[in-house]
Amino acid sequence: MSAAAFTLYGMTGSGNCEKVRLVADHLGVAYDWVEVAMGGAREPAFKRDVNPAGQVPAIVYPDGRRLAQSNAIIFRLAEGSDLVPADADARADMLAWMFWEQYSHEPYVAVRLALLKYRKRAEADLDPELLVRGTAALKRLDDALSDQPWLVGAAPSLADIALYPYSRDAPEGGFDLAPFPALRDWIARMGERFAPRA
Amino acid sequence: MSAAAFTLYGMTGSGNCEKVRLVADHLGVAYDWVEVAMGGAREPAFKRDVNPAGQVPAIVYPDGRRLAQSNAIIFRLAEGSDLVPADADARADMLAWMFWEQYSHEPYVAVRLALLKYRKRAEADLDPELLVRGTAALKRLDDALSDQPWLVGAAPSLADIALYPYSRDAPEGGFDLAPFPALRDWIARMGERFAPRA
Repeated sequence: MSAAAFTLYGMTGSGNCEKVRLVADHLGVAYDWVEVAMGGAREPAFKRDVNPAGQVPAIVYPDGRRLAQSNAIIFRLAEGSDLVPADADARADMLAWMFWEQYSHEPYVAVRLALLKYRKRAEADLDPELLVRGTAALKRLDDALSDQPWLVGAAPSLADIALYPYSRDAPEGGFDLAPFPALRDWIARMGERFAPRA
Repeated sequence: MSAAAFTLYGMTGSGNCEKVRLVADHLGVAYDWVEVAMGGAREPAFKRDVNPAGQVPAIVYPDGRRLAQSNAIIFRLAEGSDLVPADADARADMLAWMFWEQYSHEPYVAVRLALLKYRKRAEADLDPELLVRGTAALKRLDDALSDQPWLVGAAPSLADIALYPYSRDAPEGGFDLAPFPALRDWIARMGERFAPRA
């Protein structure tokens, strides 16, 4: 008998999957992990049984309920916890960062990292826009964090969790964090607060 | 003296901005509209006063509070209303569709439309991936709607609102909706439920 609250289908090294692990660990929620191979999420069986969108992370509860999209999953897990502000304006600000992450940060920072690290593409062959737009996203984070320790309010929220893994790993995508001291300090703070379980 | 609840900065023709209008109109919330010119959201004054991310839509309340990201704005406006399911699982499913919209639908369907309609690019010059991935997104919607009238539960939610404008306008982006009858029926239902104010 497993005490797992759900099964998490993911890929090691995926920041989107790491978000779910960080939140579950922070909340003390036990789960089973199923490693999905590269391309495995696009297989018909995965789409049928786990996530019709063909993406990880996705979770399946013991009773069959399913949920996909990293930021929706962490919202579901953390609603009512210290990671989701009780104030409606702050909660909306948190969601604004999370939608911005998926639209204006991940498609550049995470995609450039994936192309270099996993697809073994040469830096010279990449669309130059990835570096320009990813750097702009990292600069916006640095600006926001230059006068506040966390993205929303006085404590870390899901906004910080959503933006942490790929910002931390940005150097592997060829992004230089040297010009962004506030971002680097926040990455260090996040690493202390949300250390992955051994 | 204006009775407006907020000022909405947006661009006519933007589906992301239309989402906010549809929700405000549905809820009977009055607002002032400020039309932003093409490129205007990236001006320094706009970033300073309205949205540091340089994007529309963005709203500013009379007391100075600000909020950006279409899906965060509509969540803020509609929280507690009939457009946000009271059940936590259904609410998370709604958010999953909304994150998927920004990551897997808008960047293909809306971007291809914008390149053709506003940037006057020739269809032959566009990245073929836009058509492939946008069509895949529209197919996923058609699949989901083939056995249920709305994306989440028994009534329209913010998931439907978020996916409606750009799906409806997809033909202007060169997408063929003929193979997607369930999607076309849903577009018609949405048009009846959420007709724009004259």
